[in-house]
Amino acid sequence: MNDTFLKACRGENLDYIPVWIMRQAGRYLPEYQAIRANVDFLTLCKTPKLAAEVTLQPVDILGVDAAILFSDILVPVESMGMRLEFSDKEGPVLSEPVRSKSAVEKLIIPDIEVDLPFILETISILRKELENKVPLIGFSGAPFTLATYMIEGGTSKNFLNTKKMMFQHSGVFDYLMEKLTVTITSYLSAQIKAGAQAVQIFDTWAGILAPFDYKKFVLPYLKKTISDIKKEGVPIIYFVNNCAGILQEVKKSGADVIGIDWRIDISDAIKKLGKKTVVQGNLDPCALFMPKEKLEDRVKDILWKAEVANGHIFNLGHGILPQTPVENVIAMVEAVHYYGRKS
Amino acid sequence: MNDTFLKACRGENLDYIPVWIMRQAGRYLPEYQAIRANVDFLTLCKTPKLAAEVTLQPVDILGVDAAILFSDILVPVESMGMRLEFSDKEGPVLSEPVRSKSAVEKLIIPDIEVDLPFILETISILRKELENKVPLIGFSGAPFTLATYMIEGGTSKNFLNTKKMMFQHSGVFDYLMEKLTVTITSYLSAQIKAGAQAVQIFDTWAGILAPFDYKKFVLPYLKKTISDIKKEGVPIIYFVNNCAGILQEVKKSGADVIGIDWRIDISDAIKKLGKKTVVQGNLDPCALFMPKEKLEDRVKDILWKAEVANGHIFNLGHGILPQTPVENVIAMVEAVHYYGRKS
Repeated sequence: MNDTFLKACRGENLDYIPVWIMRQAGRYLPEYQAIRANVDFLTLCKTPKLAAEVTLQPVDILGVDAAILFSDILVPVESMGMRLEFSDKEGPVLSEPVRSKSAVEKLIIPDIEVDLPFILETISILRKELENKVPLIGFSGAPFTLATYMIEGGTSKNFLNTKKMMFQHSGVFDYLMEKLTVTITSYLSAQIKAGAQAVQIFDTWAGILAPFDYKKFVLPYLKKTISDIKKEGVPIIYFVNNCAGILQEVKKSGADVIGIDWRIDISDAIKKLGKKTVVQGNLDPCALFMPKEKLEDRVKDILWKAEVANGHIFNLGHGILPQTPVENVIAMVEAVHYYGRKS
Repeated sequence: MNDTFLKACRGENLDYIPVWIMRQAGRYLPEYQAIRANVDFLTLCKTPKLAAEVTLQPVDILGVDAAILFSDILVPVESMGMRLEFSDKEGPVLSEPVRSKSAVEKLIIPDIEVDLPFILETISILRKELENKVPLIGFSGAPFTLATYMIEGGTSKNFLNTKKMMFQHSGVFDYLMEKLTVTITSYLSAQIKAGAQAVQIFDTWAGILAPFDYKKFVLPYLKKTISDIKKEGVPIIYFVNNCAGILQEVKKSGADVIGIDWRIDISDAIKKLGKKTVVQGNLDPCALFMPKEKLEDRVKDILWKAEVANGHIFNLGHGILPQTPVENVIAMVEAVHYYGRKS
């Protein structure tokens, strides 16, 4: 098996820099669209055979060094008792947002094997299929990011409801974060027991907070989640979107790998995180629309700057966009493997 | 006249830290809503008597240390020949986005006195009304931020059209930025000649870029704009939203004052900008929903941290939200004046 990705997570010596892509199983691939033509998004997430099939597509098509379970960060939120729908225009909609103590009280702590068996079954299919290929990454949303969706009822511009709960009813907010921390911990542990060889925690919305609030309202729950999963013995990646202002705090998360977005120079990020960190990132997803020579220059720049870190996993700074040309993605993967050779 | 704000811009000694609020003339004020009940947003911007009236409201109601011209950053864009509408749900809509060389070619460089006389008339009314009160700030969108609206046709999630133009047709992008730079320079110069005593350049969307792209595609036009306006002799404030990852570049803009958003600790920003900088900001607009004691603590924290800079103008880290309780805004202004005393 190609274990370059796992070695990079552990800061070990490598033959070349590994690469995978956030949302690598997705709408930019015609092969994915062919499957989605017959099945809606949530059904796809919940049908192990199909979810496994789309998970495998980018491994074969792009030649990436890791597969990531195809699912959505809101799947466990649905299993907590919320009604979840996906609209093509608005994205996820949780029709009854959580904005009171009684709403938090009603939330169920799911039993992963009973309530989300399809996730574990997808993982077990994937481990067999990936046996001689690449490692499998499991994932979850971070407690704060899931909390924002639950409180706002979907995405938001200003996250005012979330911040109102934090600032006016911090007891209710803490109660929600505690329930999420327990759920996420058991969700990730179950994924690892089922066969996930690394996990990524996505904190898509942590970057909307002032550093003081990140430290006070987000970091404690994240540290608890990470330290509880650590005993499962697989690498933990913590991806923080819009991280530039909060990296000094992110550093304290305890994760093995820190994933960063593109709005910060990777040199600057490594300076803040310390050279002992393994860093993941950080090409602007829109750079995949560049002519290939320019795209290669960007790849080289990131690779060279990240050489001072304890390890580097190449990735985009956020999920790949649906309009992205597949040939450019392949060119990017090839450029990482070519210019990231270590011998 | 209370010239504390102007003294702060120049890094002079002060009796107390001045404060004003981005979007201080706006929907959170019942007095503003009373006027808007009878007139649409764009008409309000273009009717000097009414625009002056709403500009003055927060000066009297809140006791802030500066007034800022009531207008919209897209008003000069309309005068360049684009059709502009405001929808309550979607915000600004420019129905024929600029996405080709020929579209850029068609754009007019407006003659401010002929095409935007109402702006200059509003300023001249305001200077009379403000004579014994506070200074008047004029403003414009920055070249890049205006370019994004023109290319996207409004706000955007990923700014893909903007980045595609930058990455695939940089000559067209540069041509647009050049036209915008000329327009903005003459727009701000005209405002200053009409009586604006300081100007703020709003770069709402600069923070969506990787630092490399900010440096290459944004900074040169901004530096040109600022150096051309400098000869008018009034302080220039450059506000960059989501600035944390690009402050090392922002530092080179040549502005007298750098305005920062709330997603970075103000100590960290001052470290990056250097202690010779005058800094403006940076309370999270959502902090105005806190109970007053907590709000005061946040105000104090920012004031104390900013003491090491060459000067500090208190402000929010972005525009005030329409739902904000007015009494909390007044409490914030009072807290700045009380805890920001220098004697």
